[in-house]
This record gives sequence, C-alpha cells and structure tokens, in this order.
Amino acid sequence: MARDTEGRNGQHMVRAGNLGLILRAVRRHAPCSRAEVAAATGLTKSTVSSIVAELVDRGLLREAGAAAEGRVGRPGVMLEMDDSSIAAIGLEVNVDYLTIVALDLVEQELFSRHADFDARSAGPEGSVRQMAALLARSLTDPLLAERTVLGIGIAVPGLIDPVTGIVRYAPNLRWRDFRLGELLSAALAEHGLDDVPVFVDNDANLGVVAEHRCGHLAGTPGLIYITGEVGIGAGVLVDGVPLRGSSGYGGEIGHMPVTRGGPRCGCGRQGCLEALAGIAAILRRATPDLLPDGSLPGDAVARAVRVAAERAEAGDAHVLRVLRESGEWLGHGLAILVNLLDPRAVVLGGYFVQLAPWLLPACEAVLRDHIVAPRQDADLVQTSVLGLSAAARGAAATLVNDLDQGRIPVPGRRPSS
Amino acid sequence: MARDTEGRNGQHMVRAGNLGLILRAVRRHAPCSRAEVAAATGLTKSTVSSIVAELVDRGLLREAGAAAEGRVGRPGVMLEMDDSSIAAIGLEVNVDYLTIVALDLVEQELFSRHADFDARSAGPEGSVRQMAALLARSLTDPLLAERTVLGIGIAVPGLIDPVTGIVRYAPNLRWRDFRLGELLSAALAEHGLDDVPVFVDNDANLGVVAEHRCGHLAGTPGLIYITGEVGIGAGVLVDGVPLRGSSGYGGEIGHMPVTRGGPRCGCGRQGCLEALAGIAAILRRATPDLLPDGSLPGDAVARAVRVAAERAEAGDAHVLRVLRESGEWLGHGLAILVNLLDPRAVVLGGYFVQLAPWLLPACEAVLRDHIVAPRQDADLVQTSVLGLSAAARGAAATLVNDLDQGRIPVPGRRPSS
Repeated sequence: MARDTEGRNGQHMVRAGNLGLILRAVRRHAPCSRAEVAAATGLTKSTVSSIVAELVDRGLLREAGAAAEGRVGRPGVMLEMDDSSIAAIGLEVNVDYLTIVALDLVEQELFSRHADFDARSAGPEGSVRQMAALLARSLTDPLLAERTVLGIGIAVPGLIDPVTGIVRYAPNLRWRDFRLGELLSAALAEHGLDDVPVFVDNDANLGVVAEHRCGHLAGTPGLIYITGEVGIGAGVLVDGVPLRGSSGYGGEIGHMPVTRGGPRCGCGRQGCLEALAGIAAILRRATPDLLPDGSLPGDAVARAVRVAAERAEAGDAHVLRVLRESGEWLGHGLAILVNLLDPRAVVLGGYFVQLAPWLLPACEAVLRDHIVAPRQDADLVQTSVLGLSAAARGAAATLVNDLDQGRIPVPGRRPSS
Repeated sequence: MARDTEGRNGQHMVRAGNLGLILRAVRRHAPCSRAEVAAATGLTKSTVSSIVAELVDRGLLREAGAAAEGRVGRPGVMLEMDDSSIAAIGLEVNVDYLTIVALDLVEQELFSRHADFDARSAGPEGSVRQMAALLARSLTDPLLAERTVLGIGIAVPGLIDPVTGIVRYAPNLRWRDFRLGELLSAALAEHGLDDVPVFVDNDANLGVVAEHRCGHLAGTPGLIYITGEVGIGAGVLVDGVPLRGSSGYGGEIGHMPVTRGGPRCGCGRQGCLEALAGIAAILRRATPDLLPDGSLPGDAVARAVRVAAERAEAGDAHVLRVLRESGEWLGHGLAILVNLLDPRAVVLGGYFVQLAPWLLPACEAVLRDHIVAPRQDADLVQTSVLGLSAAARGAAATLVNDLDQGRIPVPGRRPSS
C-alpha cells in the first residue's frame, strides 16, 4: 500500500506501487500462492487477486499448477514469473566495440553479442547508424519472436543528460552535446522500429546496476563498479540505488587529479587518474611497439591488452613494471573513493579484468596504506565476472527493474474495455 | 499510509509512519485544520483526528484557535507546532572547543554556547568529564525548565560506529576505539541525568544535516559540507539523505592523497589533503611565529586564525601566498568531490569561513579548471552562515528530524491505560 505521501494522484500511484510490490514478492518467493503473496506483502487477498490477474494478462506472471502435496495449508494454484513473454535490450557503445545483451523477465540472458567497432572513425552519426543496424538485426532474431520488447537502454562512456538522452561529453568517443537518444530513435524508425522506448545512461552507472542484479556480488547494497575500457568511470551504488548527483553527472573519476604534474591527459589536463591508470595509458607505456605513432585506434585495444597480458605472463620486466606502477596509481584513486564512500566492495570491470593479476597486488598495497577506517575485508577489490557485457547487461536489467517498481509499459492482451 | 512493504510489524509501522506524515504536514502548512491535514496527507479524517490527539497529548502539536473569518470552507480549530514543550541538544567536541546548541521543535535556537577547550590536553576521559559537566549545567538552565529533552547528539571529528557510539579513530583528537557513548551516558548519570538518550555521529555528517535544515541553502537536496576545524571532513547529502557508507565511515577526505610526496601529515602519510589545505597546516605555514615549536595546542587555533586573517587583510605577502596555495589544494580536493558526487553546492564551514576571502579565489580557479561536467553555477562553493555551531546544530536537528520520521520518544501526558 505504498502511497503518494502528499495524496496527489493517489489511486494511480497505489496501483503502480502494488503492481511492483507483488511482482517483487513473486520474484522472491515463486512458486507461491496468492495467499502467500498476500501474507508477504500485507495486501488484502482481493487486491492481490485483482493485481495478479492484471500481471498475468500483461504476460509477467503465470500459473504454475497446484501446490505440492506435503505443503502446509490449503493447496492453491501457484504463481511464477512468466519468463517467456518479454525481452529487455541493452547496448553499449564504446571506443572499440558494440555489445548487445537481451534479458528475459528473470534476467536470464536470451543472447549477447560483441562486435569490434571503431567509434572514433565512425563518428557520432556513423555510430548511430551502426547501432541502429545492429539493434534491427537483433530485434528480428528468432529468439525474440513472440516477445514484447520492453525497451532499449544505451550505455555510453560519458556524461549523459538522462532526461533528454543527450551525450554532453564523451571525451574518449570525442562526442560533445550529441543528441544520441533522439537520433537513435529516428534511425530505428527507418528500420521499422518506431515504437520501442530508448533511454541513454552512463556506462559506469549501468555497470554497477549489472553487478548489483547479475554479478557475483548481486544484492550487495554498497558497491562501486570501475569501468576499464579506454577511459575510467565509476558507478556508485548507495543502499542499492545508483548515485547520480544533482544533474546526473556523478561518478566522473577519470579526470580526478591524483598528482600535480604527471603525463598530459587526452582532456588537456595533467595528473588525471585516466592518464596514469587508464587502459589506453597503460598500453601506450606497456606495448609501445604495437602503437608505433602513439595513437590507439579502437580496433587495436583488445589485441594490445591481450599482448600485454601475454608478455606479463612470460615475465617481461618492462610490462611488469608498467603494470605495477599503473596498479599503484589505480590504488591511489580507489583509496580516495573508499575513504569517501565506504563501499562494501569495489568491482573492477572491462579490460582491467585481464590485467588484474599484475595490477591488483600493487593496487591493493597502496589502497591498504591509505584507507583510514578500520577494515578487515581482504577482498575489498574484486574483478567482475561480467566481462565487457556489464554495461549493456545493466541497461537491460534497468528495464526489468522498472517493472519491479511498477512502471510497466507492457500492454495487457485482453482488449481494454 | 506508509507501510512495511513486507507486512511485518505492520500496525506499528503504519502508526509511526502516519505520526511522522502528519507532523511534517503541520510543520509545512501550519496553521491548518484537521481537514486540511487529511487533504494534504491522503489519510482519512478519523485517522487524522486520532493521531492529532496523540500528538497534542505528547506536546508536539497544539490548537491555535478558530480559522480566520474569510477562509473558504467550514471554519475549524487550527493546528500548529507546539514549540514550548521539547528541547533537542547537540554538542560538538573538537580539538579546541566545545559547542552546545539547544533547539525547539521548530528548530529555533533556545541557546548556544561555545567554550574554548583543549581536548588533547584533557584526554578522552577528561573530555568526557567536561562534556558531561557542560551538559549538566545546560540541561538545568532555566530556558529548558518545563521542557522534555529529546536526547543529546554528540558530534566528533572522526570515524564513528553510530550503532555503538564508539569513536573508532579521531586522529586530531588522538582518540582511538574510545567508547564515548557509553562513558558519556555513565558520566551524565553521575549528574543525575540517567534517562537522556545519547547518540554519537561524525561532525561532518551532522554539519550537512544542519546546512540542509537550518543553513542558508536549507532544503537543497544535493549538498556537500566541508568541516574546517583542525582537520577536514566531508558530509555528503544525496537526495536529502546523508551518505554514510556501508559501515558508517563515509566522508573521510582529510587523508585523501592529492599528490605524491608532499608534506608529512599527522597520520604519518604524505600528500594528504589535510596536510596541504587543513587549518592546522595553513596556520603552521602562515603564522609560524605564533607556533614557535611547530605545535598547535587546541587553545591557540582560534587566535592564530584571527591573526592570519588580520595579516591577510593588511596585505602580508607571505600570508597571502600561503592562503593562495592552500586554496589551490582545497580546490584540487573539491574538484575530486564535485566530479564524483555532482552536488548542487559545496558549503565550507568552521574556520574556513574566516579565511575564505583569500582561500576562495584560488580554490575556485582550480575547481573550474578540473570540473568535467558542463556547469554554469557561479556559486558552487559557498561559506556557511552557521559558524562553529554547525555540527552541534545538526546533532540537535537530527533529533527533531527523528520526530518527523515518526520516531517519537516523548511520552504522552495522559496516564497510559
């Protein structure tokens, strides 16, 4: 019986609140009877019956059959999540790849695809065309036939205005004030997809949602997720809610000044964390022979990371030293985050995962030296198991989470009267 | 009708939720009738009548007389906050002072006192004795006669375990694992005050509560408050709620490493923000003649700040240079906070206010250079109007806020049946 506390729009809010409440209760307790849902939510049985009917009609719940024999109480028809009817799509665009992930209602993966891609060469408009083409191919995949697509969430490494879908500043993509949401919707319409809702958010914000819902630390309320693509970003979860800041620009750590002087960053400043511990900065120092003119085209990143890991594995002293020094700077940056935000864990994502065996020891040593609070946790810094799909997965999971909050765009199947 | 969403302890939670809801409604709309409260909260008139009766009995609301003549609708008895019956006490202990503030139900100041104090010389147990003596004198002040004391909130510059009231680490006080809450309660009992609830929290966390409820930016949801006592701490408000972190240790910025190398900090590390931009660090460099052996006893801080400000005012080149450099380091630290947390404003408190005319220009220049997001706000950094009373005021306001959330320790005046 969540209710608008100021009493405006009361009925509508109550209904939406109760839809979400019941969906979450079935998600947690399924299979379960209507009576069990009433007991778990505190709602009356008649409210539960009415709302369950609506959720079944919308294809989000289904009846699973009678209760097991030995069960205490009067056996009833059991409810479960209907994982056959909807799909949520997430797409990440980054400097060197596009990743797409489709999830069902219980956040199982329907499919995921990863494509090499050079976003800088494509430019913003070219990137939109390729994103729309990839989405169009994916949405007509037989795996999605018969499913209602909830929407498409786009993850971008940059500062996003979430209301308008405008990318304010994505330094590594070299996009500024780019109307991504609007232009992608238009491009999708050219593919005949003109009624699919689109939203745009920062890759790190979506990465931490993915860790919270699907990662190996799922359910941990205080998490920080660090993106390790060409740039470094932070997604911060406070009590289970992403910290966005007053304007939606929170989590910017790549250009955190961690020392005076230091190498010049792509943003023009000196001493930025990204210029000392970012993947591009690491590769420029670790494998200069692969980047003869110092530039790092999008399609060279994955290979250079692989080569750097191979050389470290083989004991290459130069690569080991670069990774150790970069790990120290990373620890320096994480110390600031941990002292300020006091998370339960920090999860390193993206390419950091492949380089973690050599980055982490130095990172953790610096971190330990700089944490002020008494902490016993040996596993404060962990590596993601979600690989390069975290942000796309988080975008799709955000759409599923919207359902859990009672924001349900799926129409009923019965004709409305 | 806020309700425990999982249906446990349902009745109790509903009642408490509704108590808080009605108290907040009257706080906002007073003077107002019961019917207006019902309209504003969405509660039924009978629920409003029952709860208003309880709040009047507990001395939190009172009837103010009939509605004005010209008013639309049936004239009714008007309700208002009863500002005569309770008091909330906040006490800050810092390196060089004790500050006590008493607020009434509408957060008007009943009294405040500021006493010079040398916490390091007193030691932790000696500090507790002095705090208890000051509290005992204040609670028997005629201004508090007839009032029920809600509780006492203690603000400490350090890492606090809020559940146990243990000060884990307060480097500038030199306290470690000190059972402040327990020992202060025991000391109060010796003064005959054995039934007053005590809580302990970090000074910066309480400072941001004070700014949010009583400062010149009251009501701004995204605020950062920076303490400027001997140390530097940050209180962060996200959507109006203090960010505490997983263990309650959030907001630690004094030992944020802002450069490699740099002067040695009191914590033993190098490059800490506090060693570059903290008040003690500033005074050691700006007015070394006042601190002949480099030490800064608690009772010398306020005077040295005053002298530094006088010399800056008089154009002393050395002091001006120190303040400019310190302002740059402060801007460096604030840039990290602003990029990560994206607040609406940063409020500088404590002694920073007196030195702000010379610190702020350099601070703001560095900050502007390092903010990545597009921001137009010229007044991102502001100085507090709450002076050295912010943390104590925030401690008292926290107790009043507890009432607004329906956590009401005040007994009714009618004998319970």
